[in-house]
Amino acid sequence: MAYLPSVELVPKALAGDERAIARLLTRAENGTPEARAAFDTLFARAGRAHIVGITGVPGSGKSTLVSKLAKAIRASGRTVGIVAIDPSSPFSGGAILGDRIRMGDLGGDPGVFMRSMATRGALGGLARGTLESVDILDAAGYDMVLIETVGVGQDEVDIARAAHTTVVVSAPGLGDEIQAIKAGVLEIADIHVVSKSDKPDANKTIADLKNMLMLGLAAGKPWWRPVVIPTSAPQDQGVVELLAEIDRHRAALDASGEINARRAMIDERRLIKASEEILRDRFEQHRHGRLAALLENVSRREMSPHSAATRLIAELGEYA
Amino acid sequence: MAYLPSVELVPKALAGDERAIARLLTRAENGTPEARAAFDTLFARAGRAHIVGITGVPGSGKSTLVSKLAKAIRASGRTVGIVAIDPSSPFSGGAILGDRIRMGDLGGDPGVFMRSMATRGALGGLARGTLESVDILDAAGYDMVLIETVGVGQDEVDIARAAHTTVVVSAPGLGDEIQAIKAGVLEIADIHVVSKSDKPDANKTIADLKNMLMLGLAAGKPWWRPVVIPTSAPQDQGVVELLAEIDRHRAALDASGEINARRAMIDERRLIKASEEILRDRFEQHRHGRLAALLENVSRREMSPHSAATRLIAELGEYA
Repeated sequence: MAYLPSVELVPKALAGDERAIARLLTRAENGTPEARAAFDTLFARAGRAHIVGITGVPGSGKSTLVSKLAKAIRASGRTVGIVAIDPSSPFSGGAILGDRIRMGDLGGDPGVFMRSMATRGALGGLARGTLESVDILDAAGYDMVLIETVGVGQDEVDIARAAHTTVVVSAPGLGDEIQAIKAGVLEIADIHVVSKSDKPDANKTIADLKNMLMLGLAAGKPWWRPVVIPTSAPQDQGVVELLAEIDRHRAALDASGEINARRAMIDERRLIKASEEILRDRFEQHRHGRLAALLENVSRREMSPHSAATRLIAELGEYA
Repeated sequence: MAYLPSVELVPKALAGDERAIARLLTRAENGTPEARAAFDTLFARAGRAHIVGITGVPGSGKSTLVSKLAKAIRASGRTVGIVAIDPSSPFSGGAILGDRIRMGDLGGDPGVFMRSMATRGALGGLARGTLESVDILDAAGYDMVLIETVGVGQDEVDIARAAHTTVVVSAPGLGDEIQAIKAGVLEIADIHVVSKSDKPDANKTIADLKNMLMLGLAAGKPWWRPVVIPTSAPQDQGVVELLAEIDRHRAALDASGEINARRAMIDERRLIKASEEILRDRFEQHRHGRLAALLENVSRREMSPHSAATRLIAELGEYA
């Protein structure tokens, strides 16, 4: 396949050409510099889709839930794009086939587009391209875009929050330490799901969440009260209810005018994430160049990392 | 207690005064601006301790291992400071009592100083002050400083790597998804521990790790081959071996001269972490001020987040 310049892929992607979409997604994931102008155009054309973040601890059954939810969205007559940040994915970028395999019987449906983005080990770039990927699917006309992340770690939480509606998935019977990690994530939920609700200890998890919501309600938002939805994958239980609740949340955002505050928050998060990415890129680029002297000062302990960072930030504009 | 200026706490901390150390640690965790000069001085005076990062997935038994390891370090005649980034910690900053409680029978020993730093929900600042805390304990004269983190998420991994020796703890019988998340973390291990080695399926975990190391050895470092150490907390098994291996790693770093490369890597990581912190602070400070126009452009989709971020980075020096 010849390399098609990204700007030439844009009109195809806007027309819903799956192959063009797939290639742009790969370039987003790889951070291909040539594709930057294309992403800017796609960002300008995006903004119509309902973005839903779905996050939960490992073992909570998010991936199964996302597949079931995609089916329910299709059954409601809408199309759906999915970006899954998948630490257990053995494949990355470009493999339409691979993307299709995970979707099972949704694999042949052109109204669903799924992309798994592998995390890159411990070396950073976990989230790279995720939000551009959402723009691509949004601009390509998918009615809803789901972002699936593992809800541990700041990066993942930030991504889950870059959505109009955030769903947090809990599961019964996970260890205490895991549940505690989740505590910070629970605060960001617009909707709670308790998966595997056929398990015997599910009622305790549901009751715990409801109690937590009761305690928080006094300080809650007048326009929205999060609910707890039990789901059970083998019986397909709760998925239609979840979609109805997601739609209800979007309607409440619109009716209350809160959608504007939510959009502003997403823009802020995207701006800071993009700034951090540029900072890391410039650092990478100049570590052996103009950063070397600064690092030398730190290594001699003549300058603290914080003082050196203040200097770095002051000069960063000249580092382009 | 009257507020003592941080610079007045420095000489006390350098002399090993626990109360002064505790107060500086609290100021590191809170990011108290007044304490910045004190931290710079402490950084200049640090550099003697052997810093050991200990990381592992939730449920791997890190905290128990860290307590046992602290005992072994004391038994070898050395002192130890511990910074635990603890998502399950109900208490934060300042509570010497709280810190002591977790240490159990080590609580009365002046040769051990333990600080649990609570994570701050989903709102960022997870790692804030961690590396300054290491400086404080290092400068205060503790022979070894242990940093305990949950090995999921970029921030935690970065912190675990800001150490001379990185120990990764695995446990038998955790779910597949959890083990997969760990895959990225495994790459950074100088020493592997398999905790709960009394469990029946521990042998499989040990064998899996050894296989992984075998496969990686061709590209390995000539001066160091990571080993796998089984530990079992109820029987105190493996802890003395772990300490011996940590000491052996430090000796290998010194003998090979690799210690300089490792120190340079730590300095780089600290510089970039500090830069990100400053970036976030400036963002926070100017979001309703000079950043408002930029955000407005993004919200009208006239400028992409990446273009806006490029502008932000260029101007950041003037935002002080």
